[in-house]
Amino acid sequence: MPELRKDPIISRWVIISTERGKRPHDFVVEPEVVKGGFCPFCPGNEHTTPPEIMAYREPWTAPNTPGWKIRVVSNKFPALVTEGELDRRGEGMYDLMNGIGAHEVIIENPDHRATLSTLSIPAFADVLYAYRDRILDLSRDPRFRYILIFKNQGRAAGASLEHSHSQLIGLPIVPELVQEELSGSLSHYRLKERCVFCDMIRQELQERTRVVSENEFFVALCPFAPRSPFEIWILPKNHHSSYTDLSDPGFLKLAEIFSETLKRLDAALNRAPYNFILHTAPVRETQLDYYHWHFEIMPKLTLMAGFEWGSGFFINPTPPEDAARYLREIQLEAVAAQVAVS
Amino acid sequence: MPELRKDPIISRWVIISTERGKRPHDFVVEPEVVKGGFCPFCPGNEHTTPPEIMAYREPWTAPNTPGWKIRVVSNKFPALVTEGELDRRGEGMYDLMNGIGAHEVIIENPDHRATLSTLSIPAFADVLYAYRDRILDLSRDPRFRYILIFKNQGRAAGASLEHSHSQLIGLPIVPELVQEELSGSLSHYRLKERCVFCDMIRQELQERTRVVSENEFFVALCPFAPRSPFEIWILPKNHHSSYTDLSDPGFLKLAEIFSETLKRLDAALNRAPYNFILHTAPVRETQLDYYHWHFEIMPKLTLMAGFEWGSGFFINPTPPEDAARYLREIQLEAVAAQVAVS
Repeated sequence: MPELRKDPIISRWVIISTERGKRPHDFVVEPEVVKGGFCPFCPGNEHTTPPEIMAYREPWTAPNTPGWKIRVVSNKFPALVTEGELDRRGEGMYDLMNGIGAHEVIIENPDHRATLSTLSIPAFADVLYAYRDRILDLSRDPRFRYILIFKNQGRAAGASLEHSHSQLIGLPIVPELVQEELSGSLSHYRLKERCVFCDMIRQELQERTRVVSENEFFVALCPFAPRSPFEIWILPKNHHSSYTDLSDPGFLKLAEIFSETLKRLDAALNRAPYNFILHTAPVRETQLDYYHWHFEIMPKLTLMAGFEWGSGFFINPTPPEDAARYLREIQLEAVAAQVAVS
Repeated sequence: MPELRKDPIISRWVIISTERGKRPHDFVVEPEVVKGGFCPFCPGNEHTTPPEIMAYREPWTAPNTPGWKIRVVSNKFPALVTEGELDRRGEGMYDLMNGIGAHEVIIENPDHRATLSTLSIPAFADVLYAYRDRILDLSRDPRFRYILIFKNQGRAAGASLEHSHSQLIGLPIVPELVQEELSGSLSHYRLKERCVFCDMIRQELQERTRVVSENEFFVALCPFAPRSPFEIWILPKNHHSSYTDLSDPGFLKLAEIFSETLKRLDAALNRAPYNFILHTAPVRETQLDYYHWHFEIMPKLTLMAGFEWGSGFFINPTPPEDAARYLREIQLEAVAAQVAVS
């Protein structure tokens, strides 16, 4: 019997279509082939990108030259532009403003063939640390209300360049989905004096049917009402509303569980494309009792079609309990050995 | 300068990315090739689908045999099932219910090679009439609160069979997006004692920059804040909240403008895949002063990526004013001549 399940934070329903009950190999994933060719993100080609905003690099190297570990540049084809005023206005009955905002690219590693899941833990932690640095820097600009960090891995997930990178968009308004999350978790807090994410983590760690893995600081789990098959959230076990509150040892622990999660997904789903998004409190809203930062990782295995566009519902052919079991059963040592051989 | 535009009905913002300013031929559309092979929707194969729920057929022909113009059957792999109780319940902090609902397929024409845009106007009107018949029939089942009609045209838009068909899902709850539309338009009505869609139609018919075409009863326009490039809405000019209120001559007029709109899209975008969705009032909610039924047509030209998943915003590289101009300039006679030759 299929189930209609409600996300505990926002009023989003999904149909868990048990009749279809898709397992990992039921999804047709076209393997991403590294095409190579000229790459503006590779060392030596620094002059072909906009100038770097920030970099982690050897101290004796100059900006926009090789010698970096992480490099952050403006998007060459930005969705929003940084210069100008918002100029909020009406046009008859319609409302609009200028598209002011930041659109940056975080080049995660000099190696063209690397993906986040093949990086060492310290190199992965550097990427996570760079997210924090950019959020802190942009938070000083009073025009920005929200900094959204996300990654599109693979062409089908929206990546237009194959060299592994994340993106950042700084926005003059708090986006709709974040507002829904904030107001949903505030309602829960008002009703119960508890954070809805903390409640969820407690229930999941007791039941364990949807937990994929955990460490001292973090838990990775398949959410109760996932939009996409094999969707995974990574959450800090203790209550924190803002990603920028994370401690230095926290970044290493986050890199560990994030790397392991991506390795499990890669192994289960034949390196399927995915998107992930950092969900964190709006800038300058520190220490919210009702909100809890986390990452949401969504493999790209199904299409957004008419039903989803019309309803806002999602049809998910893989129950999260099954997805979590498949992912837990992945033998990471075996995967590591296989990668070493190939 | 890019613009942030707000949908006048719901709180959905889109980024109109003028820097990218994509024209029709800037989109890479892989033409859909008719593959043929065995098709369960073709005449003669009626026994390979679930039995027909409804058909428009020659009076001397038997159900589930050839001789039909339109055939409605249950989806063989339904997302929801019709038999059973909803059994609304909790699981700890989570809410769920059984996936009860209808999932039907409307086979639009016996001809395997036909698409909606190649059908004659009377044949198109039959399809639109069949939508009404199914909504009226399913409205009698008290378990259903909403009947969603939609179409996925082309594989990239989610169609798993190439023989042209629409789908219907009957739901035990009013879906999130419809609820947002209803409450957004109710807010407008309470503020102004006017329907927000009627206001929009009035402004659009005055400005004419986003109108693609119109006839006595209907207008086709590119909305002010479209999620996808070349998105088009078709709306009745007079106020009606429910699709089932449409008169018999209305169906012919709707078929005319709908057919013309799809022909324009096919010509401009090289027969790009698309989704369309019928937006109408919930069942048994007749004659709402604040809601206005309409179709939303969304060509599949861009990907839903991390930014969209994280924000609920959409980035649209084609301003609707440009899209409407391109679509108005299509010479339909030239298209018809080209089709006749090929």
